[in-house]
Amino acid sequence: MERLAVVGTGLIGGSIALGARARMSGVRVRGYDADPSTGRRALEREALTELAGSPEEAVEDADVVVLATPVDHLPELCARLAPAVGRAAVVTDVGSAKAKVVLEGEGRFGGRFVGGHPMAGSERHGIEAAEGDLFHDAFWILTPTPATLPEAYSTVASFAGRLGAQPVAVEPQRHDELLARISHLPQLAASALVSVAAGEGSREVLLGLAANGFRDVTRIAASNSELWVSILEANRGAVIDCLDQLRDRLAALRSSMAAGRWGEIEAFLADARRARLELFSKPAYAGPPVALSVPVPDRPGVLAEVTTAAGQIGVNIEDLRIIHSTEGGRGRVELIVAGEGPAGELRSALGGLGYRVDDGGVPE
Amino acid sequence: MERLAVVGTGLIGGSIALGARARMSGVRVRGYDADPSTGRRALEREALTELAGSPEEAVEDADVVVLATPVDHLPELCARLAPAVGRAAVVTDVGSAKAKVVLEGEGRFGGRFVGGHPMAGSERHGIEAAEGDLFHDAFWILTPTPATLPEAYSTVASFAGRLGAQPVAVEPQRHDELLARISHLPQLAASALVSVAAGEGSREVLLGLAANGFRDVTRIAASNSELWVSILEANRGAVIDCLDQLRDRLAALRSSMAAGRWGEIEAFLADARRARLELFSKPAYAGPPVALSVPVPDRPGVLAEVTTAAGQIGVNIEDLRIIHSTEGGRGRVELIVAGEGPAGELRSALGGLGYRVDDGGVPE
Repeated sequence: MERLAVVGTGLIGGSIALGARARMSGVRVRGYDADPSTGRRALEREALTELAGSPEEAVEDADVVVLATPVDHLPELCARLAPAVGRAAVVTDVGSAKAKVVLEGEGRFGGRFVGGHPMAGSERHGIEAAEGDLFHDAFWILTPTPATLPEAYSTVASFAGRLGAQPVAVEPQRHDELLARISHLPQLAASALVSVAAGEGSREVLLGLAANGFRDVTRIAASNSELWVSILEANRGAVIDCLDQLRDRLAALRSSMAAGRWGEIEAFLADARRARLELFSKPAYAGPPVALSVPVPDRPGVLAEVTTAAGQIGVNIEDLRIIHSTEGGRGRVELIVAGEGPAGELRSALGGLGYRVDDGGVPE
Repeated sequence: MERLAVVGTGLIGGSIALGARARMSGVRVRGYDADPSTGRRALEREALTELAGSPEEAVEDADVVVLATPVDHLPELCARLAPAVGRAAVVTDVGSAKAKVVLEGEGRFGGRFVGGHPMAGSERHGIEAAEGDLFHDAFWILTPTPATLPEAYSTVASFAGRLGAQPVAVEPQRHDELLARISHLPQLAASALVSVAAGEGSREVLLGLAANGFRDVTRIAASNSELWVSILEANRGAVIDCLDQLRDRLAALRSSMAAGRWGEIEAFLADARRARLELFSKPAYAGPPVALSVPVPDRPGVLAEVTTAAGQIGVNIEDLRIIHSTEGGRGRVELIVAGEGPAGELRSALGGLGYRVDDGGVPE
């Protein structure tokens, strides 16, 4: 990749640009932001090598196009940029909700669109908060579908990897349902908790007594409210489902408390404690590279099936390429995963989906 | 203070003992824990100089007694220890809910009981997690009442100060209502959010994708569930009120989302953002010592009125002593606060309560 285009140079777009400049020597980064001062700051910070006067100019001869505007602008942006993006270019986005965007992106760019969502960020926002290693050791969710071209997926996954992130494939719908639970609902809850704490009146000095627990729980309530509205709007159905689930749990807690059924409260807290402790005790999947070779039929959806299967069991695909058969009809997906443990898990998962998994050769 | 007794040598009691040993040379710390192995570990870690065989033995000739058991044990413990605690000793506790405990403590120890609640801790618990500087730069809430003896208040406040904390006086009832908002409700909400995220099924690997926001929001859900049940039980009414407030806010958010009234959502998030940013932007109240001298009538409640007035406007009382008039009827409270700004704020607040505030002499 030699020519990168970044449309939207705020926290995420700016960090991608900075990371690319730092980690990919000789890359040209042309950027555009709807806010001229944001674009200029991105150039001044040397996130960009060139500042474009329009999104079309930013993308015109790019190999890889990253759309990093607020999520509600993405469908319109895809439509607008479709005639300007080169036929061989790969297009990705960083929106926090994926189903709608992926539908629109594929409608405009076909299999060369790969939905993406880096799981990094902060309650800060804007180009000033951008940093080149924002994605270091973060997960970067990709949402391939049956239409996704393997080469496009590989390009975006390896781009995310070069920025220090670990790409993981998840189906778009599943991404949205998952994010509602682990991000969008917590965001609303954190804001609601601040609202209860702050009460109706003006600022109360005693709130300053709050210990670290409160600071942690409510930190994300300091996030940008406009950006959050666009995310909530893009994932409305899943978020409403989650709000209902939270309401039910809080109602159950309230009725246990009111009735003095403390055993129920303790069981609930103990279950949540166990879940919380398990959540981040995921084993580190590092190890020597193991190559797997999967003969695949030449039909749409195979790539998405294989990569999302890996994502669902938490196995990171370090590298992936497609070997097309010269005779047509069948080809092979060659995968590299780190460590025999994950390799074995992926073998079983793919076996369960009806794939045969052979040993592959690790490239030197 | 030469002889400290600590009953309950877990995270908080153990940390108090370690802090006292590190910061008060020559102090004797006699401790007891209902769990013999916890007591032994406290002795091995040199948090204690002596391990007592019973709570009575721990307190028998102590100057200061710290009760650091789970909050539901405190009323019974006060009753049990009343005959064993010396007549001149000051008794304090560290329970996370105060109204009930203070009532019981004063019933047993009169004005020598001063309720306390250090605003430090962690999702870890037990003597292994204890550390001598746990309270460094933390607030330590004290809950004096009209019955509190000034000398007892001074002793406990200066003890908290020597452990590195900043003592703040708050009325017991107000403490409980405040803590329901900034600690007890967030605790329940964090557990409920983990429960929604984890879903009904078994552990899901994809949850590991959760970014820092989710980790922050749910960190306290890893806290000890038994301890939390005792806290919730001790503060049931205020917590139920807060659960209702949270329910109302979430219901309003849900209905705004369902109806697509995004302006309402944005206004709500923006208000919460502003409140969250203001919450911890409290100015640092450091500065040269300023002495205030407040002539006070010789009646109960004056000390609590003066100290909680300071607490409510966020002014830290660095030192406090009572000058009794030799003629009876009136005396003076001498206060030291840091900086002219806070001194001025406290002057106004006390003036508003009908006190005359004179300049005092800063002790050299």
